[in-house]
Amino acid sequence: MTPAKRQLHLNLFIQGIGHHEAAWRHPETNPADMMDIGYYQGLAQKAEAAKFDAVFIADALAINANIEFGPFNNFFEPLTLLAAVAAVTTHIGVIGTASTTYGEPYDIARRFASLDRVSRGRAGWNIVTSSNERAAQNFGHDTHLQHSQRYARATEFLEVAMALWDSWEEEALIADRKAGRFVDIGRVHAIDHQGAHFRVRGPLDFPRPPQGYPVLVQAGSSDDGREFAARFAEAIYTAQNTLSDAQAFYTDVKARMAGYGRKPDQLCILPGLAPIIGRTTAEAKERQQELNEYIIPQYGLHMLSRNMNIDLFSYPLDGPLPELPPIEQINGGKSRFQVYVEMARRGNLTIRQLIQQIAFGRGHDTFAGTPTEIADHIEEWFTSGGCDGFNLLAPNLPVDFDRFVEMVLPELRRRGLFRTEYSGSTLRDHFGLPRPANQFSGRG
Amino acid sequence: MTPAKRQLHLNLFIQGIGHHEAAWRHPETNPADMMDIGYYQGLAQKAEAAKFDAVFIADALAINANIEFGPFNNFFEPLTLLAAVAAVTTHIGVIGTASTTYGEPYDIARRFASLDRVSRGRAGWNIVTSSNERAAQNFGHDTHLQHSQRYARATEFLEVAMALWDSWEEEALIADRKAGRFVDIGRVHAIDHQGAHFRVRGPLDFPRPPQGYPVLVQAGSSDDGREFAARFAEAIYTAQNTLSDAQAFYTDVKARMAGYGRKPDQLCILPGLAPIIGRTTAEAKERQQELNEYIIPQYGLHMLSRNMNIDLFSYPLDGPLPELPPIEQINGGKSRFQVYVEMARRGNLTIRQLIQQIAFGRGHDTFAGTPTEIADHIEEWFTSGGCDGFNLLAPNLPVDFDRFVEMVLPELRRRGLFRTEYSGSTLRDHFGLPRPANQFSGRG
Repeated sequence: MTPAKRQLHLNLFIQGIGHHEAAWRHPETNPADMMDIGYYQGLAQKAEAAKFDAVFIADALAINANIEFGPFNNFFEPLTLLAAVAAVTTHIGVIGTASTTYGEPYDIARRFASLDRVSRGRAGWNIVTSSNERAAQNFGHDTHLQHSQRYARATEFLEVAMALWDSWEEEALIADRKAGRFVDIGRVHAIDHQGAHFRVRGPLDFPRPPQGYPVLVQAGSSDDGREFAARFAEAIYTAQNTLSDAQAFYTDVKARMAGYGRKPDQLCILPGLAPIIGRTTAEAKERQQELNEYIIPQYGLHMLSRNMNIDLFSYPLDGPLPELPPIEQINGGKSRFQVYVEMARRGNLTIRQLIQQIAFGRGHDTFAGTPTEIADHIEEWFTSGGCDGFNLLAPNLPVDFDRFVEMVLPELRRRGLFRTEYSGSTLRDHFGLPRPANQFSGRG
Repeated sequence: MTPAKRQLHLNLFIQGIGHHEAAWRHPETNPADMMDIGYYQGLAQKAEAAKFDAVFIADALAINANIEFGPFNNFFEPLTLLAAVAAVTTHIGVIGTASTTYGEPYDIARRFASLDRVSRGRAGWNIVTSSNERAAQNFGHDTHLQHSQRYARATEFLEVAMALWDSWEEEALIADRKAGRFVDIGRVHAIDHQGAHFRVRGPLDFPRPPQGYPVLVQAGSSDDGREFAARFAEAIYTAQNTLSDAQAFYTDVKARMAGYGRKPDQLCILPGLAPIIGRTTAEAKERQQELNEYIIPQYGLHMLSRNMNIDLFSYPLDGPLPELPPIEQINGGKSRFQVYVEMARRGNLTIRQLIQQIAFGRGHDTFAGTPTEIADHIEEWFTSGGCDGFNLLAPNLPVDFDRFVEMVLPELRRRGLFRTEYSGSTLRDHFGLPRPANQFSGRG
């Protein structure tokens, strides 16, 4: 038996009918799919057949400000969507996004515990802090919390959630029919949390989820976000555009983990990758160009203006970016702001070119090439300290995911980089993560 | 073609491994089922094969205070559970409980909208106000809201939810690829709600759910509860123990509807029914006795003490109920308090006998008899103005539901009282309810 080679982790990020911002206009897609649970279930089944680690679902808690010109969210709430996906799959992980900025830890903790039970140990929670003013206004706030406050609240939120998941020790449920004792009450613990943001008595109303905790996923890349990730995250979804940036991020976050008594292999770093696949390089570039012809400039201008914290509608599309506010004034998506500024500077891009550049992945790595070139790109990042795998952003869905499976995956497998079978049945198994210890064990 | 005879509505209320409080101790049940999503899915599939209207799931947002002596909740959060049930069924309704006392209307509205989409139009929301102190303490409150405040909050909560479900007009999603317009933005409406309890801008982040609104179900029977039901409810789950009480309740609530411009047939009243089935009457009574032998008195005493707002542990089990506090002092479950007091008075019951009486249905109608006697009982209530159907509380699950399907349902069908096939595919179809008009239509 040959020793196991380090394996890539791959998630399929399902975002409506494709990640390209104009995917809905392309004749290859079907806008009605967005409302059809069968479409999402079918994609997850394909991803499971391809032995992907997980499907990944984003969330925003508010309508997209650009909805006139295109969708952004899926037309479902993530946990109900993923429970229905889990019901028709057996192995693939189901990672859903939920914000710590609104809502209550008791509610979110039990929903993910329930999803973990529904999926028999395949749930992941993509923890986000919300910086969307529209979301704030749907939850009784006039404006959104400041960046650092959001992370302070997120930290306390996680502490409460973990205590709730631990509040039943493994041996608590005895169901001793003869003695008439259903639960060993000494092994079920109130958490009696009293903090700056929350007061929660606990315990949770049902036993510990199958994975102990759902896999904790995080998507922020700012300094606060990195610190939070180093402490809690078991997978990170991050936007990196060059190998050297990816390496610097990877090294930095993994190094920070020691400060929290954690080892580097307790975290998978998975940048986004938007692959545009052609049989030849020229064909890939043509496809990139063709997809971009469907772009509606207003859509990209809205999104860029929001991320840049400046109204770009008054500047010429074919001119450069204007003078931008200093990063300190950015409250929400600090790291995305930096990614866009860096992209524009690096390529000396006009506003229109920047819009085209981010149309595929909103700042995530966009790569057009042949299956071999894409496999080379993936292998290079993976083997030179840039990442542990990727969150896949297919431009048009399902067609570009089908292409990836048919054209790129066999090449990755020939190189021994990606599994041909699952070796376990939980998301922790796929990611190679330990089941967390219970903070109450032994105290009972 | 013969004119359609008025048809019973039947829901299967899935509560752990049975509604009898000691079901978990009985050799017929399997406590491990409580944690197995396949068990819940299997029951729902059986109920669908039996052409039931819906499955019904309760919720409590806190651990059962008596957990040492038995379970109370399911070991899942209702909406993730029901999404997984919806994924493996095609016709049966999925009714889940959610409280308006904690949480935010934007969150709850979109979760039910999502469940309605996941199930392709089969979702129902059992709207409850929480009176559980333990739930309050899981959500940052020291104590729970007063009864009338809970209903004021519930009313505003519903108004916001309905406005959010209406915030996309039916024709809003145009997906005009050529013109590059995804949504007719004039048909998507901010709701700009500013009330005593909530401020919500809206719109919802996705189009109107398939049924317009999920079916609105309500379970309170106090005066506040009846008024709320008359205004909003499309189905009521209520505890009634005699036909005359049921008739009085039915007449009262249906009469109140006119005050809100609603017609009596826009509401199905479905009392709980715990049937204990025997081939002979004596066999049914024996089974009732046998199940009660598993009762753990502490469990019932805890529950009664809470509902009675008095500590019953210091009174002899085989003596009468002590002097009880006046109903004005009951803050939570006022109607249940009355049901229990009335039961004890009517039967001149000792505390132990009252515990045995409520062990099957926590105050809901408990009836032991042959299939014919049970069918007679159902028919009498149904045809003499007592109800529009029942929420079925099987003592042991799945076995007592199987018996009901095999032994009672054929008798109901022989009498032409219950469907042999579904005539539609949504929960509104099954309940004979109209799809609600959109309050924004025509304004766009």
